[in-house]
This record gives sequence, structure tokens and C-alpha cells, in this order.
Amino acid sequence: MVSLKRIAVIGSTGSIGRQTLEIIRSFPDRFRVVALAAGKNTILLEEQVNEFKPRYIHFQGNRHDMQGSSFISLQEMMELSDIDTVLMAPAGISGLKPTLWAARAGKRIALANKESLVMAGGIINSEIARSGGKLLPVDSEHSAIWQCLKGEKQAVSGIILTASGGPFAKYSREQLEKVTPEQALKHPSWLMGPKVTVDSATLLNKGLEIIEAHHLFGVNYNDIKVLVHPSSLVHSMVEFKDGTIKAQLSYPDMRFPIQYALTYPQRWSNPNLPRLDWSSIGCLPFAEPDTSLFPCLELARNAGMQGGTYPAVLCGAGEAAVALFLNKHIPFTRIASIIEQVLNEHHPVYQPDIDTIEEEADRAYKRVMLIGTE
Amino acid sequence: MVSLKRIAVIGSTGSIGRQTLEIIRSFPDRFRVVALAAGKNTILLEEQVNEFKPRYIHFQGNRHDMQGSSFISLQEMMELSDIDTVLMAPAGISGLKPTLWAARAGKRIALANKESLVMAGGIINSEIARSGGKLLPVDSEHSAIWQCLKGEKQAVSGIILTASGGPFAKYSREQLEKVTPEQALKHPSWLMGPKVTVDSATLLNKGLEIIEAHHLFGVNYNDIKVLVHPSSLVHSMVEFKDGTIKAQLSYPDMRFPIQYALTYPQRWSNPNLPRLDWSSIGCLPFAEPDTSLFPCLELARNAGMQGGTYPAVLCGAGEAAVALFLNKHIPFTRIASIIEQVLNEHHPVYQPDIDTIEEEADRAYKRVMLIGTE
Repeated sequence: MVSLKRIAVIGSTGSIGRQTLEIIRSFPDRFRVVALAAGKNTILLEEQVNEFKPRYIHFQGNRHDMQGSSFISLQEMMELSDIDTVLMAPAGISGLKPTLWAARAGKRIALANKESLVMAGGIINSEIARSGGKLLPVDSEHSAIWQCLKGEKQAVSGIILTASGGPFAKYSREQLEKVTPEQALKHPSWLMGPKVTVDSATLLNKGLEIIEAHHLFGVNYNDIKVLVHPSSLVHSMVEFKDGTIKAQLSYPDMRFPIQYALTYPQRWSNPNLPRLDWSSIGCLPFAEPDTSLFPCLELARNAGMQGGTYPAVLCGAGEAAVALFLNKHIPFTRIASIIEQVLNEHHPVYQPDIDTIEEEADRAYKRVMLIGTE
Repeated sequence: MVSLKRIAVIGSTGSIGRQTLEIIRSFPDRFRVVALAAGKNTILLEEQVNEFKPRYIHFQGNRHDMQGSSFISLQEMMELSDIDTVLMAPAGISGLKPTLWAARAGKRIALANKESLVMAGGIINSEIARSGGKLLPVDSEHSAIWQCLKGEKQAVSGIILTASGGPFAKYSREQLEKVTPEQALKHPSWLMGPKVTVDSATLLNKGLEIIEAHHLFGVNYNDIKVLVHPSSLVHSMVEFKDGTIKAQLSYPDMRFPIQYALTYPQRWSNPNLPRLDWSSIGCLPFAEPDTSLFPCLELARNAGMQGGTYPAVLCGAGEAAVALFLNKHIPFTRIASIIEQVLNEHHPVYQPDIDTIEEEADRAYKRVMLIGTE
């Protein structure tokens, strides 16, 4: 028999949050939504509260209870003893503190927020080790790696992260300079929020995933390779010491990794998830990324290798640069160069505490906003 | 520290046997060749004896010791207490008895002979269960499945066996009728013995692998799918209950699965094995097989589903049909139809013992020889 899993969903009105509730809806007898936290979309949150009847809620704005669900702070929510798994999907750098609280409280954290690990992977890993919590990757690439590592101990020689390449994988430099936000928001294979969709187009997202993979799996930066795979069916691969490789495949649908994180170490049959139709696949393409046209990839790898507050600056600057691009203040190709400029200006702090990390991310955000609107 | 692995290689002068000794040569401190058994190639066997200095040998022909290695019977060899792993690579149906003896003796059997499992999977599995032995697959497809299953308990929904498709995957019926033995022996991606190379061209080999996979992994025949994958880099895949798929990849080189079977559950670093070069791969192609042009695939699946002595007849008839084709007595397309004819004529015995299985395989062999040379 399967025991009831008691879940908190942080970021419940976002893309990952809504898909998480869809999975939970498929197994009404096996999951109990104990808490929901959202940003400003209180209309959708109210609908979710009505359907799932969580005991606790949190949102941005004037605090009030909803239909018998009590408003509590995010930190109180992460410390609730009647939650065993937190689906952590707040947007961007705002995910840092909730992830840290959940790590300290020893929760199983189904982590869809990569920025928290990118900025503070060392701190979060030590908190997890101390509290007995666990990180369960939700990013499709890291879920794939995690699945390929199942049953394989200390035999890894490298990781291959696949990247769709985004909508502009075959663009020239001239074409890239003219890309509009509308074009960048049309991802060829994945349905995601606006920030991560633009990050996919610049490959900054893949760069952040390199740092995330380093912290999740303890693999050296030089042993993490990126391959462009436009059909987004192979979600990532692991190379083992003996030279063999394992890959994980499914249609590009976040419900697969979300469900796996929630049911791990089990796999549950879910008729709502589509099976791969091999008769329509034909060929699985792979290519090396063009790092000169998409410099964010190596900017991120270098920030990760340098460590200290560099990854925080990368996240803060990246968030601001994407906001400026979406508001048509800077062209697409300026996203990478503005991040690079702010990383170059940065005076790093090594072994920073969480407050320093947040301050430096914030400082980088403001610096990019200043440069980009000058 | 790794303890010394004491190995017997059965079929040491064949393709798999020689590649096994190559792997053993890479780790002189970790393997000890205790026994070697060959067919008629005593010249190569003598060279191997000279290099590896086994305590025991066996070969076909007049029995005599070699350079201090004692000649013993195959059955005595399988019962030696100072052997823990047997690399089982005799050709075709002659592998049945040695595999059975090793199973009874509770050995770890690195199994490269598929006919033994195809003909007597039920019997061998019960002997293994009783003796505490273990089957370690060496066929690249079954090794891939075994690797993908590592750490995954009771979550399998299906198996996808990949097939190179052989040299004639894109031939028309008219072209197939004119195929010569020389053409059939040129496999596009794998270096193997003549029987299995022709079986790859007819897809009978893949059909035998369906039955082998059924016995190794307990998966229903209807949940075993075959995909043609001409580049032979994805060696097979497993589909899990939750709809996700795992695949295993490497260059088509039997040393990978041989080494894994010998080092399982570990993976050893071996600089002699080539790493996948992704910059040269481009695209991994997959297609459904054409079962009307290559009827052996479904003949085999049906023989497996019918059970009893049908798989033995399949193996005996297949071995004779390939011999007739190689000796230019029958055209390529007659291989399938002659096997089908003998299967149709067969009066099956259900729950047969080993002797009945051998007799029926032998009877089918002789029947095909008779029909084909009439």
C-alpha cells in the first residue's frame, strides 16, 4: 500500500505549479495538498483553494484567509510538520529563501527553482545533509540524469545536458540582433513561463543547469557537456566510467519529471501522460552548441567555476536583462553582453552567507537595470 | 579492493570468446582465466593456453592436455568449484547443455549464447532459482535492458529491442531474392560470427532476442517491441509504467557488454574502449521493421508465445536454413519460408525435458536439410 503524500506547492499558479496540481488531480487518493503558495494571481489561487482545500495558504499582497484556509508566512509553511514534500516552483531568485527554509526543516524538496541551487548550492547542500532532507530534481534535464543514475553508485564519468537550442538555434548573428520578445517567447518544444523561455533562447537556461547539475550530482564542471537536441525527447544523459551511456526519454512535458519527483522512488502508471509514438519520430538529432553565437552558456559555466558570489550576480543580472529585453529596452544579443559586463565588474565574496548572496544578486539586478535604461 | 574474478570462457576461439580474452587482458590483476573451452580451432586455443595458462581446457577432437592445462569434460568444467563466472559463448544450439550444467552448478553465467535460453528458458530459470546462480546478459540488447533496469523494481511496462536492420533493411523483395552469402556476411555495424550475421540480415536474430528477453526479464511477448536503428548506437530501451523511457548507448562493440557482465555490479574504467564522439553522430534514426519482408521476426515471436518445443524447432530449423543458404543450396528469402514450413509441420510437446528439446531441435535441423537439398 502507498501512504498518503502530504504536499505543499510553492508557486501554485505558475506553469509548473499548475502542472503539479494536474498530476495531483490524477491521484486523489494518494496525495493531499496541505498548503498552496502563490504570487499575485489570487484569482487563480482562490480557484485552487476551492478545489484542493489546503489547510494553509500564502500569497503576495494583503494577508487574509480564503474559504477556511489559513494565511501563514512562507517560512512557517516550510516548517509545518504535516508536510513531507514541497514542490518548489517560485520564479527566479525569489526561490532562494523558501528553498533554504525547506532544506533546514528537513523536507523532501521537489525542486523546480534552479536559481536557489545556482546561487547557494553549497549552503543548501549542507543544510540538507544536516537536516536529513532530500532534493528531488524537477527540471527535466536533472530528472533525466537522476533517473539514469538510479542504481549506479560512484561510476559516473560525465553528464550530457541536452538543450532544445531554443527558437533561434540556426540564426545568424544578424538575425539574432533583430529578434523580438514575441519571437523569443515561442519555444519550439516546451511550454514554460516567460523568463525560462527567453533563457532557453539565449542558452542562459542551459548555463544555469550546468551549475545546478554540479550541485545536485557533485560532477566537475569540465565533465558536464551540452548537446543541442531540437526534438527535446532525450532529456539528458549520463556517461559512466566504462564508456557506456544511459539516456532518459519522453515527450517534452513537465508532468513527467513532476510526477517522478512526487512518487520517487516509485513510478506510477498515469494514463494522462502520452507514450512516445516511435512511428512518428524518425531521427533524434544531436549537435554541439555554437558558443560564440550563444555566449551565455560559457559565461554561466565560468561563473560556476569561479564560485563565491559570481553565480548570484549571474542570476540577478540575467533576470534584469531578460526583463529589459521583454520590455524592448535592449536587443536580444545585448542580454549576454550586459550580463558579461556586470560579471566582469563584480568584486566577488567567497564563502558568502545567504544575505550576502541575496544582496549581490539584487545589486547585479539593479546595475543591469541602470545600464540598460541609460 | 576488488577480489580476483575466476573465469571460464566457453567458446574461447570464437568472436565473443576472443573479445572476452581481450577484456581480461586489460585487467591482468583482476581476472584469472581458470578454464578455456573451444571447438575445433586447437591452434588458436593453444596460443590462448600459452598466454592465459588456464588449469583446465576442453575442445572437440582427440582429448589431450596442453602445456600443463588438463583436459576435462565440459560438464566437469561447469562444476569446478574454483570458477565463479562462466562466459558462455558456444555457437548456437550446442550451448544448451553447458548452460544447463552451469545453471545447475550455481555459477554466474555471462550468457552470450541465446539459443539455450530460447529453447529452454523455463528449465534454465528454475535451475538458476534453485542453485542460486545468476544470468548476466552479454547480448548487447539484453545488456542494455539489464543496465536500464538497474535500480528499477517492478516498474517496467515494456521493452524496445533495437535492430540494425542488417545489410538489406532497404531492399525490395526482388533484391532480397538475389542476395548472396557474401553480401549477407557483411554486417553494416557489428563484427560477429557467420550464423548471427546472417540471422541479423533475416531478423531471425531479433526474433530469438524477443524470446531471450522474455525469459531474462519476465516481460510479456506483447510488451516487447522491435525498432530498426541502423546506426546501432542505442542498444535497447526500457519503457516504465509512468511512460518514461531509458536507453543505453555506446559504439557497437561487444567488449562493452562483455566487460559489464564480467564486472557487474561495478563498472570499470577501460581506456581501450572508445567513447562516443557526439560531434560525428548527427542523428539517431529509428523506424518500425517491415515484417512482411522480414517474416522471421514474427515467426519467432509466435514460436515463443506458443511455447513448448516450438522455440527448439525454430532454433534447429534456423541453424540448418542458414547453413543451406551459406552453402548456396537455397536463396536468402527461402530461409524464412523453410523455417515457417517446419514450424507448421511440428507436433509440439509442452513442458518438455531437456532431452526432448534437444531431440526436437535436431529433428527440425535434419528436416530442413532434407527439404533444402531435395
